[in-house]
Amino acid sequence: MNIAALLTSAGINIGLCVLLLSLYSVLRKQPSIVGVYFGRRLAQVRTKRQDPFCFDRLVPSASWIVKAWETTEEEILAIGGLDAVVFVRILVFSIRIFSIAAVICIFLVLPLNYYGQEMHHKHIPSESLDVFTIGNVKAGSKGLWAHCLALYVISCSACVLLYFEYKSIAKMRLAHIKGSPPNPSHFSVLVRSIPWSPKESYSEAVRNFFTNYHASSYLSHQMVYRSGTIQKLMSDAEKMYQMLKSTSIEQNCKPSLIRCGLCGATANSFKILSNEAESVEEKNDLGALDLSISEKECAAAFVFFKTRYAAVVTAQVLQSSNPMLWVTDLAPEPHDVYWSNLCIPYRQLWIRRIATLLAAIVFMFLFLIPVTFVQGLTQLDQLQQTFPFLKGLLKKTFVSQLVTGYLPSVILMLFLYIVPPVMMLFSAVEGSISRSGRKKSACCKVLYFTIWNVFFVNVLSGSVISQLNALSSPKDIPTQLARAVPTQASFFLTYVLTSGWASLSSEVMQLFALLCNLFNRFILRKKDDPSNVTLSFPYHTEVPKVLLFGLLGFTCSILAPLILPFLLTYFFLAYLVYRNQILNVYITKYETGGQFWPVVHNTTIFSLVLAQIIALGVFGLKQSPIASGFTIPLVICTLLFNEYCRQRFHPIFKSIAAQDLIEMDWQDEQFGRMEEIHQQLPAAYCQVTLTSNDLCKCGHSDHKQDADNVGEPEAMKPGLIHPMLGKLPLSGIREVIAWLFMLVTFQEKTPHK
Amino acid sequence: MNIAALLTSAGINIGLCVLLLSLYSVLRKQPSIVGVYFGRRLAQVRTKRQDPFCFDRLVPSASWIVKAWETTEEEILAIGGLDAVVFVRILVFSIRIFSIAAVICIFLVLPLNYYGQEMHHKHIPSESLDVFTIGNVKAGSKGLWAHCLALYVISCSACVLLYFEYKSIAKMRLAHIKGSPPNPSHFSVLVRSIPWSPKESYSEAVRNFFTNYHASSYLSHQMVYRSGTIQKLMSDAEKMYQMLKSTSIEQNCKPSLIRCGLCGATANSFKILSNEAESVEEKNDLGALDLSISEKECAAAFVFFKTRYAAVVTAQVLQSSNPMLWVTDLAPEPHDVYWSNLCIPYRQLWIRRIATLLAAIVFMFLFLIPVTFVQGLTQLDQLQQTFPFLKGLLKKTFVSQLVTGYLPSVILMLFLYIVPPVMMLFSAVEGSISRSGRKKSACCKVLYFTIWNVFFVNVLSGSVISQLNALSSPKDIPTQLARAVPTQASFFLTYVLTSGWASLSSEVMQLFALLCNLFNRFILRKKDDPSNVTLSFPYHTEVPKVLLFGLLGFTCSILAPLILPFLLTYFFLAYLVYRNQILNVYITKYETGGQFWPVVHNTTIFSLVLAQIIALGVFGLKQSPIASGFTIPLVICTLLFNEYCRQRFHPIFKSIAAQDLIEMDWQDEQFGRMEEIHQQLPAAYCQVTLTSNDLCKCGHSDHKQDADNVGEPEAMKPGLIHPMLGKLPLSGIREVIAWLFMLVTFQEKTPHK
Repeated sequence: MNIAALLTSAGINIGLCVLLLSLYSVLRKQPSIVGVYFGRRLAQVRTKRQDPFCFDRLVPSASWIVKAWETTEEEILAIGGLDAVVFVRILVFSIRIFSIAAVICIFLVLPLNYYGQEMHHKHIPSESLDVFTIGNVKAGSKGLWAHCLALYVISCSACVLLYFEYKSIAKMRLAHIKGSPPNPSHFSVLVRSIPWSPKESYSEAVRNFFTNYHASSYLSHQMVYRSGTIQKLMSDAEKMYQMLKSTSIEQNCKPSLIRCGLCGATANSFKILSNEAESVEEKNDLGALDLSISEKECAAAFVFFKTRYAAVVTAQVLQSSNPMLWVTDLAPEPHDVYWSNLCIPYRQLWIRRIATLLAAIVFMFLFLIPVTFVQGLTQLDQLQQTFPFLKGLLKKTFVSQLVTGYLPSVILMLFLYIVPPVMMLFSAVEGSISRSGRKKSACCKVLYFTIWNVFFVNVLSGSVISQLNALSSPKDIPTQLARAVPTQASFFLTYVLTSGWASLSSEVMQLFALLCNLFNRFILRKKDDPSNVTLSFPYHTEVPKVLLFGLLGFTCSILAPLILPFLLTYFFLAYLVYRNQILNVYITKYETGGQFWPVVHNTTIFSLVLAQIIALGVFGLKQSPIASGFTIPLVICTLLFNEYCRQRFHPIFKSIAAQDLIEMDWQDEQFGRMEEIHQQLPAAYCQVTLTSNDLCKCGHSDHKQDADNVGEPEAMKPGLIHPMLGKLPLSGIREVIAWLFMLVTFQEKTPHK
Repeated sequence: MNIAALLTSAGINIGLCVLLLSLYSVLRKQPSIVGVYFGRRLAQVRTKRQDPFCFDRLVPSASWIVKAWETTEEEILAIGGLDAVVFVRILVFSIRIFSIAAVICIFLVLPLNYYGQEMHHKHIPSESLDVFTIGNVKAGSKGLWAHCLALYVISCSACVLLYFEYKSIAKMRLAHIKGSPPNPSHFSVLVRSIPWSPKESYSEAVRNFFTNYHASSYLSHQMVYRSGTIQKLMSDAEKMYQMLKSTSIEQNCKPSLIRCGLCGATANSFKILSNEAESVEEKNDLGALDLSISEKECAAAFVFFKTRYAAVVTAQVLQSSNPMLWVTDLAPEPHDVYWSNLCIPYRQLWIRRIATLLAAIVFMFLFLIPVTFVQGLTQLDQLQQTFPFLKGLLKKTFVSQLVTGYLPSVILMLFLYIVPPVMMLFSAVEGSISRSGRKKSACCKVLYFTIWNVFFVNVLSGSVISQLNALSSPKDIPTQLARAVPTQASFFLTYVLTSGWASLSSEVMQLFALLCNLFNRFILRKKDDPSNVTLSFPYHTEVPKVLLFGLLGFTCSILAPLILPFLLTYFFLAYLVYRNQILNVYITKYETGGQFWPVVHNTTIFSLVLAQIIALGVFGLKQSPIASGFTIPLVICTLLFNEYCRQRFHPIFKSIAAQDLIEMDWQDEQFGRMEEIHQQLPAAYCQVTLTSNDLCKCGHSDHKQDADNVGEPEAMKPGLIHPMLGKLPLSGIREVIAWLFMLVTFQEKTPHK
């Protein structure tokens, strides 16, 4: 590939991007499809304005770019939560570090690469891209010092930037926690693995345990019920309500019966009620009802405490001398609870965790099978030999082009579709108690998958076995990578150009949602329901994508500096696009409170160390032992820096400091808010709102919550996990477009060779 | 080596053992050296009985064996603490598992090995030992099924036994904690990294922080002073006492001045006193004194709480939003505190930990240099070529025998001496806050060192580089080990016979202490001071030794079953000897509360998995794919079992459950003991007793404590760490004897080839 081809490819991609972004700026003005591009706003404000048609609606404009650019971090925080800010910060960090890298690499490293060999240089446009990589530098050249220096500058500035980012995000997290309105999750502890005894129900066991050992701070508790039994419970409650109508305690219980039966107080108010009912001689019926309810209880409960500090203490201290009983964790936020996982017996969890880990690793390697199959398709001759009857068909140029050119990518994409949903499924099976935890776990899995299947598979190119062999002798790894990475640099360059840019265009276009909207309106003739399309931000697909480009940037920067301008363009565009999407499209239903940052930090350190190890190998191959020698302390210092950051910042992301919790408690007590908070607590964790919106309005099921539930159907059915159904087509379409772009502009190279 | 040689070697060793044990049974009856063999008893009871001489004193007897055998576990627990019981349990576990292994291997595996090849068997005594190993089985033989079955039986019974041992030790630990008298360490928290502010002293900062955030449970605190400044403080205190004598508050403070100045209450009673003194107009002098004291405070303090639960909560919860400030840990027991490490700035600790880890690894590999040097000595020809002037000297038979036979071992021993003290030094530098923690950490380091340098170096035999190469391709490890281990089996057999048995004889003889005693009495003509020789149990050398023999047993059992009878004899003898030593010799100054068991458990699992992997390799070499295939699930199941145990039991060894703590608090409150405990707390952690016994008798420095301090001199000088001086010669002599035995009986083989 030469410069001219690269520029052509870049030109086509820029043209496509401009076209799609202009199209977006027009489409977003059409009131009929406002639900696609303003899902978040519509979910908040339900008024439907009927604009008159005007010519302005058809003119592309850059107003959304200006809006996305001008929005401050505070607004992003208010709208998208801390996770959105963290995501934007990843982009800001990337822009900063790759600006520094671009300056030093293009002005220092690139000329050295270009004039490395004493050769007759062609006219620049027809120069091969390899001339600009480190492969062009002579062995033993003094110029390698410049590469080493560039590596030092990039590593040091990356560490400094990472440190300040970590510090500021940790500070932001603290401010966010302290500044936000009283959060029921701070007062609640999720207790699992309550021991079973034939003498008392789970609910009684919880009450006895906590009134015994935590009498001063225990407030009340709320049992978790087995999924699928909620409907039964509701009908029981209704039956009971009918029954109690005729008794003397009617006037007290009537308005709040359902609440106190299922969402309120100690959750065995049934028992209390039945005791009272005894006095009016209706013992038999109610006794049976009480029994059936206690049978449906899980060995899990939410326990509410009087102060935040007491809740944190209970969550962190070992409760029982059998660590498999009375397992306590801080409760997730009410919207964030992943109800169906709460009933998983605790003793299964460790084995589930190991099983999903193994399954994810196997899946990662098995993914090479479709890749190999697709590679087979591109070799038409082999195909004809295997299936002789295809010979006639494949002789036609169009069919042959289709089979060799597009079909492989489409098949590959069909397989790539399933990665995020499968990882999400693995994370759900793992037993995560919160939806945000599940998303974070899926994010890590997708990240490993992406880095392995895009970076390592391309670099090590070969079958699973030969790849494993390549990595099984640790001391050869630097040399192996050093040989492979520079030759793959031009592929990574086009990967950034096509897959990166195209994925942003399709992200902003929301093609799948758009098609659904049009299909609904014109084919099914349904009235469009804006709440139908509100989605939460797909961190588990977007974070790995951005981090992959960071990895490519670090590893290629000193080897093939030409990648940096394209990468910078990608990050800058991503900055605008994702800010726009956070502002307009995605709604924030639950968040991890910035817990993606440690993942980002660790991945960046991994990328840095990988880049340093590759450089080490390259310096070795180029016979520059001094440059190699200087790289080793850099690796050690980077690892030590990482360890320091882990010591200094990581505990803050795992739990909240006692000092802050106690101060928050004080403030609430000073302003007399404590009573109010305590009253709201039992209603907050109401399992029943998730299946039936009309029966139990426990104070927090406003319209936004309804919209959330509709948006993510799997959250509604605790018994049935189908995360892949929700996400599958969306990420698929986006990737197909990216790959088609890639094929159009870079036909000569198969991505997974 | 043939059976006859083995039996001769065994005979010599048995003879020597019997001789030494008889000698011991005579020596222990001599009143003049009673201090050597009854250190623990003498430390408890200080009466000196002057027995009249009688003939009985010269007759060997087995009474000590009967006594050691009859002692119950409760007595061991009462005398040696939980750690001693755990140590005995290691031996009991080993005896049990290797009895099972011996039965199945000798009756099932051994005949199969012996009749494996169709060969003409010689008369058994002249049969080579190799005939009894798995090396004699034909490739592809059906007999390998029996080996696989034996491996299954051994692995399963080991897991079952390990599970029940872990369970019973966990239970014992709980019972020990709950049953023991109120422990000041349960009420105390060690706070490190107190933030420095120019406005207030550390002491004031601690008081402000805890009265602010933990007002309901905070009792008082006790600052830690910089080592070396204690003397200065004492003189200051005395000066002040003289000064205050003339003031009006004399009558209140006089009897308890020193205590309240350095060991009592809030530890800035100086300040309080100076305030009071202001009223009598002596402000200037005392103000200066106060300043100088606050300058000598470390950023560390012991904080005392009203209940155990409050202390544990404070120790476990993150205190500040900067995790590097206000770091809290449960305090070690007063005798267990490693004072000199408390003043290490907390932010150094992580780097110290990494540095010592690296240093220990480097030391482990560098140890091969003396080994190689020693191997050079055994090749006399090379030596003569290098140093021609030695030619004449080396021609003499005696000198040549000395140089090739004994000198290498002596040199090797001189290097082996330094291992436990060096590891102890590393563990001290690491920053451990307790002496038991230091010992446990040293135990792990010595364990890795022993396993590497005895097992792997012998098996992989070669230079550091070739060993690392052998281990650098993970998939070849099973085959490598499978080739090497069976050939080394006869070496390991003699290692058990000589090093194992001899180390027990020398342990019971206490040769170094005996020589010191004789030297003192007959050369220096000093009166013997029994407290001079009281030692604490050297877990950091003995636990690794026993575990190494376990490792040899597991790895060799199915490959060379002949090792098992010798191993069983070793464990049985060790059971008697160590019980005797616990009863009579060693005193318990501090203990980890059974925390050695998780180390033992993990090492045993490691040994099991290693044995399984070696078997896997052997089955592969012997072309029995089905037996290999059946071994893989066994490896997986063993690892899963380990993970289950980690989940189920390990948390109990890290902290105490809230339930138990609260119950203990209740009991103390019910019996009205709380007040008394609270009063004793401030005096318990008194830094000054460790340097000066006569000034500050804070209630706990009874005679036993004095003896302890004399016994371990490094504990007395917080500024100066010299653990190696105390332990060096003792373990050295023992090892020299072991190695000399080895040389006598097994000359033809160099141990580290």
